[in-house]
Formats: sequence, C-alpha cells, structure tokens
Amino acid sequence: MKTYNICLLPGDGIGPEIIAEGVKVLDAVGRKYDVAFNYTEALLGGIAIDETGTALPQETLDVAKASDAVLLAAVGGPKWDTTDPNQPRPEQGLLGIRKELGLYTNLRPVAIFNALASASTLKPEIIDGVDLMIVRELTGGLYFGMRERFYDEEGAGVNGANGQRAYDTLEYREYEIDRIARQAFEAARKRRGKVTSVDKANVLETSRLWREIVHAIHDAEYPDVELEDLLVDNTAMQLINRPADFDVVVTENMFGDILSDEAAQITGSLGMLASASLGDGVALYEPSHGSAPDIAGLGVANPLAQILSVEMMLRYSFDMGAAADDIHRAVTAVLDEGWRTGDIKGPDTPADKVVGTVKMGDLVCERI
Amino acid sequence: MKTYNICLLPGDGIGPEIIAEGVKVLDAVGRKYDVAFNYTEALLGGIAIDETGTALPQETLDVAKASDAVLLAAVGGPKWDTTDPNQPRPEQGLLGIRKELGLYTNLRPVAIFNALASASTLKPEIIDGVDLMIVRELTGGLYFGMRERFYDEEGAGVNGANGQRAYDTLEYREYEIDRIARQAFEAARKRRGKVTSVDKANVLETSRLWREIVHAIHDAEYPDVELEDLLVDNTAMQLINRPADFDVVVTENMFGDILSDEAAQITGSLGMLASASLGDGVALYEPSHGSAPDIAGLGVANPLAQILSVEMMLRYSFDMGAAADDIHRAVTAVLDEGWRTGDIKGPDTPADKVVGTVKMGDLVCERI
Ligand SMILES: CC(C)[C@H](C(=O)O)[C@@H](O)C(=O)O
Ligand SMILES: CC(C)[C@H](C(=O)O)[C@@H](O)C(=O)O
Repeated sequence: MKTYNICLLPGDGIGPEIIAEGVKVLDAVGRKYDVAFNYTEALLGGIAIDETGTALPQETLDVAKASDAVLLAAVGGPKWDTTDPNQPRPEQGLLGIRKELGLYTNLRPVAIFNALASASTLKPEIIDGVDLMIVRELTGGLYFGMRERFYDEEGAGVNGANGQRAYDTLEYREYEIDRIARQAFEAARKRRGKVTSVDKANVLETSRLWREIVHAIHDAEYPDVELEDLLVDNTAMQLINRPADFDVVVTENMFGDILSDEAAQITGSLGMLASASLGDGVALYEPSHGSAPDIAGLGVANPLAQILSVEMMLRYSFDMGAAADDIHRAVTAVLDEGWRTGDIKGPDTPADKVVGTVKMGDLVCERI
Repeated sequence: MKTYNICLLPGDGIGPEIIAEGVKVLDAVGRKYDVAFNYTEALLGGIAIDETGTALPQETLDVAKASDAVLLAAVGGPKWDTTDPNQPRPEQGLLGIRKELGLYTNLRPVAIFNALASASTLKPEIIDGVDLMIVRELTGGLYFGMRERFYDEEGAGVNGANGQRAYDTLEYREYEIDRIARQAFEAARKRRGKVTSVDKANVLETSRLWREIVHAIHDAEYPDVELEDLLVDNTAMQLINRPADFDVVVTENMFGDILSDEAAQITGSLGMLASASLGDGVALYEPSHGSAPDIAGLGVANPLAQILSVEMMLRYSFDMGAAADDIHRAVTAVLDEGWRTGDIKGPDTPADKVVGTVKMGDLVCERI
C-alpha cells in the first residue's frame, strides 16, 4: 500500500479544530483509494513560542523536511501581537518555514461556489464566472529583504519626534522572477491561457526588472499564452470592476498578499479558500484565512478551506487528481444541500442547516 | 479685489480638455465671489519630456512655487512607457513635483453621489453611506527610497537567467510618520472621529515604527479620536466587505496608492473622484483618475473629478468654503438632473442626456 508522511501544523486559534477535519478527509480518501497517510504533528507560530520560545523550532523544520507534504492550519493571535523587534512573533514561523522549504510559489485559486454566490458583496452579474488563480511570489521581496531600525540625527526633533528611522528592502533577483513567471505560464496553459503580470513599473526598479524578465520568458517560451501587464493600483480596481476577466495573476510577494486577500473577499466566502505553497521539494497547504482567535475552541469554525487545501495537496503533491476531484465534488454537494457553518450562512439559512466544525467535516467525508 | 495665482498643469491625454473645465468653474466662482484667478500654464509629464527632455522642467517648478495653488490634470500615456531606467518617464514629473513642493499629505475622499450609486459593482446596501477619506503619505516610502539595478554573481545562470538584480527601499523617518498621523487625526476630528491606521506590522519594520508613532501621537494628543490598526491585506478585504464603516484611513505611500484606487473603484465612478496634495506651502489638486489616452482629444472625457479638485482647492488653499459648497451642490444637481458623460452613463441613460466634456463644464457653471 502506498504510504505518505504528512507533517501537521495545527498552529493557533481555530487551527487545531480545522486541521482535525482535514485529517478526517484525508483518511476517508485513504480508505477509498487504498493509500495510507501517516501524520506527525509539530509546533508552529504562537504555540511554538509558548512552548519553545521560537515560532519555528528546528524540530518542526526537520519533521517538515522529512515529510511528503505539510498541512498547515493557521498561526497568530492577539496574545503574541507586538511591535517590539526583539520579541518573537507567530508570523516568523510562517515566513521561516516558507523560506526554509524554498516555497517560492503560492497558488491561491479564487472561484465561486454557486451555492454561496449571494454571500459576495459584489453584484451577482459581476462575480458570475469568477475563476482566477493568484500566483504570488513567496520567498522574496519586502518580506525577506534587509530591514533595520535605528536613530537618525537628520530628522531628530522635527515635530517633536525623536528621530527613529526604519527601512525594509524590496529586492528581486532575476532567477526569482524567472521561476515564478514560469509557474504562472504553466498554470495558464492548464487553465484559460492568460496571464496578468502585476507590478508598479512606473515607480519601482524591481518592477521594471520584473516586467522585463516576465516578457523575455513569455516571448521565448510561452508565446501561446496571452500576457498583459497591469499596474498594482489599477489591478486593485479591476479586481472589483471585472473580476471574471482574470485568469492567472502573477505578482511579487507584498502585492500578492494584498491582491489575493482582495480577490478572496470578492467571493464573500474567505472561509472557502485554500492555498498551496510550492518549491522544488516538499510543499505546504493551508487555508487562506487566519486563525480567528475570537471563535477558537467553540467548535464553530469553517473547516472547508482546510479541506480544500487537502484537495490541493492531493492534486499537486500526490498526483491524486481523482481523489482531489472527489473532495471538490463532496464540498460542492454539501453546500448545494444547504449545509453551512456560521461564517457562510445567509439570512435565509434554516437554523437546522447551520452546523459546527466536526459535523461539516463529517458531511464532506460521507460524500467521498 | 482678492487675487490668486494658479499654476495650471494640463499634462497629457485628456488633461488639456478637462483642465479647461476646471478653469471655467474657477472663473464662475470668481465672478460670483468677486475674486480674481490668474493662471500660468506650465509643462509636466509626457508633454514636458517631448518639449524639454525632462518630465519636470525647472521652469515648471518655479511657476508652481510662485503660485498660490497648483491645478493638475493628468500625466502619462503609452507613448512614454519604458522599463529603461535611463529614459525619462512622465510619472517622474508627478513624483518630482510632490517631493519638491513637500506635498506629504494626499487626501482622497471617497463618497457616493446618490445619482450614480447604481454604477458601483457592489450591492446597493453595501455602498450605502460610504464616505471615507484616504490620507496617503506621499513623499516617503518605496516611492522615494534608494533603488538600483545591477548584476549579481550569486544568481547568475540559475534557470538560464543572467543574474540581474534590483532593489527598492521602503524607508520612513519618525517625523514623516508623525506629521501624516496628525493630518489624519485632524481630518477625523472634522469628520466622524475615527482613524484606521493601515500597516503590515507583522512583517515590516517600517510598519512597526509606523504603528508605534501613530499610537504615541494618538494617546498623547488625540485620545478623543477612535484609532484602530488594520493590516493592509485585511484592509483590502474590509474595503469591499464593509466600506461604509471606514472614516479616515491613514497609510504609507504604496499601500495608499493601492487602497485609494481600490476604494475609488468601490464607487464605480472613478471619473468623479478628486484629490488634494498638501504640504507646508503651496498645495496641488488633481483628479484621482489618469490621462485616459484612448479618449484624448475626442471631447468626451468626464471633467467632474477635475472640477471637484477645484472644490478641494477652494476649501483647503483659499478657505472659500461657501464657494466649494456651491461647486459640490452644482455637480450634485447636474447629476440629479440626469446629465452624464460616457464613463458614468448607465443602461437607462437617455441618449440626449449624454454630454461631452465642454457641455458638462457648462452645466456645472450654470448652476453656480
Ligand atoms: C501572516 C502573514 C505574515 C501572511 C503574509 O502576509 O504572507 C499572511 O497574510 C498570508 O498572506 O499568508
Ligand atoms: C502615476 C503614479 C506614479 C501615481 C502614484 O502611484 O502615486 C498614481 O498612481 C497616483 O496614485 O497618483
């Protein structure tokens, strides 16, 4: 029997509750397809800080690297919020594991489940047919450049301020742009054949380099894919104006962070969106939403984004397309039958159709 | 008779057409309030590159500095698009004049004209009551930090790329954050008393400094204003989810660029949104939209954002609140009567209510 080793990172907040449902779905798939999934749990984020003093313990990294895929739930919470650069923060765990595993490609599909279309704040005719994929560069740019804070004579005393100064560096190397551009073009070939490359080339030098490399690769190797450039500010507008026009959107780390959340919100159901972070080795799968500390432990969190991240894992890491399709069909069926968690229920949802985390996971498993 | 000297920067594309309507409105106000406006036209952007080789000629700067206010239309167009760092670009004119005049505060009000509410791609109940003000820091951050492109051995050859490398620097000094924060708190006091400060403090050092300074000023001097922090990715979501909840949104230059365009699009009528760029001396007023080269010279451009930027000029530079109110009322009346330019017409707009640039300017003037 085929066996896969999966590293589980429940993290903080609702993390442990939703990841349990992801595991349940994996097990259901395993039974159906005669595949064994072995799980090893490890610490990441706030809980890792509490237990080990650091957001990404070496042991976690070792477990992740030795696994066939990593399933992450969510990290962070107000408990660990700080602006003190000397204090550890949960996000360091997330950024650290992305960097250490070389996960330079973040895929965030954004599509509408018909049953949930009315949850969008956009008009139905605008979101009709939305089906896009944000390809976000994940290990470069402002997130990983040099940063520092220091005292500065020049500004001292102006407006009563005492002259602190800080900088972050947005940096890209050609090979970093090269490889993420290829991911975008490859993705587009499997989809509707169009890539929108987002930058701020009228201001940033990194964006001008970005634009040149993306075009060079396109012209040399992917001339069959349609390529358009769009400035980041204009993209923020067009995502609201004509979201259905986008197919693949490729962009640098920070722009991707902002635009993927904006695109997610367009669906009105953030609790439904999964993401895959890929590199040259083991890949990581997680929901697009956060750790929702306000509802942690209540058993009401929506596990579907976590379950859909399992779908992505089966597709991208284990080449189990049929099993992935099963999950997608099961989730669609559950929604079509009217089942909802609190975050995706509508004004017309009957009370007996509103279910908790565990029940939602069960409903999906029954349909696999 | 009171006299004001205004520097006109028509710029590129539809710029000359719309600025003429701004001037027409200023003259109408001048007649009513017995104030003389003198105009001096100067070159900025693409046209300045064509005529002088640089996007911001010294003469333009001299005229602007000697004036009481600057009215800008729009700069840029595909003719001058380039990723060659050695070629001049129209945007350099815009960035240069912001920097040289010390225009560190960009105010972008976003509100809905009732007559145009249906143009939004958001549902009516979501945009109902939207009335927010983006306060964007305009002379710091990634836009003005060190940037460079060079060749790098380390990445050379990887993935066939030949090792170029580029960086931009996101930098803030304490006094820069201090003064923009004050602008936001002052604006909030004249509005609904709430400031949302947007940053990415879980990743960026500049954001952590930003958050600390904003809170220090708030606690010491503006405790009466409600202050909330929101991460930039979450803000991109919430602007779509609950735009009416925002009052004043203060943020750094690049985030402000992205979020103000997103917020503008929420109204569905970008052609209606004006902006003011303020510093310690002469201020600059411009529409939020661009130079629309595709419709330049056709006489169909919407002049209302330009006209509303004149409203802001009267309010902020000349303390002519009554005249500013006249303009706002006139624009509202014209819209309520059903007059539209092409960009804001709806499916039900009768053909004889669709007017060109000059006629729209006339309609506003008649009502002042
Ligand atoms: C938690 C944070 C550091 C992270 C990011 O900005 O990358 C998150 O917002 C995301 O998008 O995965
Ligand atoms: C033209 C461009 C440089 C400019 C900016 O990004 O500031 C524009 O988008 C704006 O928002 O005024």
